[in-house]
Amino acid sequence: MSHAYEYERPALTVDCVIFGLDLEEESLKVMLIERDLEPFAGRWAIPGGFVRQGESLEAAALRELEEETGISDVFLEQLYTFGAPGRDPRGWIVSVAYYALVSPDKHHVTAATDARRAEWFTVTKLPSLAFDHNDIMRAALQRLRGKLAYAPIGFELLPRKFTIKQLQKLYEIVLGEKLDNRNFRKKIFSMDVLRELDEIQKGVPHRAARLYKFDERKYKQLMKQGMNFEL
Amino acid sequence: MSHAYEYERPALTVDCVIFGLDLEEESLKVMLIERDLEPFAGRWAIPGGFVRQGESLEAAALRELEEETGISDVFLEQLYTFGAPGRDPRGWIVSVAYYALVSPDKHHVTAATDARRAEWFTVTKLPSLAFDHNDIMRAALQRLRGKLAYAPIGFELLPRKFTIKQLQKLYEIVLGEKLDNRNFRKKIFSMDVLRELDEIQKGVPHRAARLYKFDERKYKQLMKQGMNFEL
Repeated sequence: MSHAYEYERPALTVDCVIFGLDLEEESLKVMLIERDLEPFAGRWAIPGGFVRQGESLEAAALRELEEETGISDVFLEQLYTFGAPGRDPRGWIVSVAYYALVSPDKHHVTAATDARRAEWFTVTKLPSLAFDHNDIMRAALQRLRGKLAYAPIGFELLPRKFTIKQLQKLYEIVLGEKLDNRNFRKKIFSMDVLRELDEIQKGVPHRAARLYKFDERKYKQLMKQGMNFEL
Repeated sequence: MSHAYEYERPALTVDCVIFGLDLEEESLKVMLIERDLEPFAGRWAIPGGFVRQGESLEAAALRELEEETGISDVFLEQLYTFGAPGRDPRGWIVSVAYYALVSPDKHHVTAATDARRAEWFTVTKLPSLAFDHNDIMRAALQRLRGKLAYAPIGFELLPRKFTIKQLQKLYEIVLGEKLDNRNFRKKIFSMDVLRELDEIQKGVPHRAARLYKFDERKYKQLMKQGMNFEL
């Protein structure tokens, strides 16, 4: 390993892909912000910004998320670090990408945010983004789809209490394919990670369905035994 | 997003966890190098070094790998980026960690390397490493174990032609548990990703076993259909 001070240093940013589920519109959304400065002024971009000295990467991602979109208290996970030469016209800038899953209990995915020019976009209808942000978006989607198959992170996208139909919709929307109702119910119940509640859906008087919660304790037990969530 | 030049910049390194399989000793190995400079002079560390401007992160990882250990032509994948404040006593240094899988066809995992003070260590018997390298090692092992369950990257650790027994040993060594022979054979053949060769093992005249190759084309077909490698 060579000495630290011989080399030029890159600027370091964090970018954060924010996923939300619109259950009414049945679509997976991401939040983008409109850039007002060059380069790429007027183009949409993944929220992010420069990491400060003395700050962890995750703290930087959470800070930028809140500053740029008003969103806090989310599931956040590091995705991948992007450092291809020329990815930013301002010079050598490396970006550590994160992705966040936003629960509709905490943030209304359909509503506009307080933040200036932050908007939800449907993932299948994205505009051409600034920098290499379309690449980052592809990587984030791939990770989300992959993870859904072996970890229950998808639950982070649902309200805390949900119906089986909503859970199935989540899988269908993220995976982009219709699933067989009976098979889905069979598989999801066989996983034994749902807790049935003594409550039914509100606001749908004639067709209110049973509500469920995700049982994190049971899930952790099962993960130790090597189960997976393949559907 | 703020302007690029207002902020201090970190130095950026790549570190590369190199896994190799010692089938005779039945152990999973990692290659470490002994540091001769402060900080941590005399301590063992994961090979790595500073990223140069104009170089991609992966190119930097491959260059450092070859410079420090003589190893080239390997499976390499980005693992995670480590940026906790204080992780390096020289100042603000962020490291993009990679992991590599070395095939015994290309590099003798048991033999010493040409590189000065590079040595293979058994993963379960590691010394206390420089910097946060024990954390990086833990993350790499967790990724390797996790990936083995749903992708056949483990084949990268075997010779190109291998016996079923060797394949089972690979799983047993990496997962750290004994697997049932009959179940293993049943599951691995049901995955249909092995190609039986018209060849048997050399050098073991009385108990030579059938050799197999991994069928990458079939594997890619199966991945599209959503299969997994859970054993």
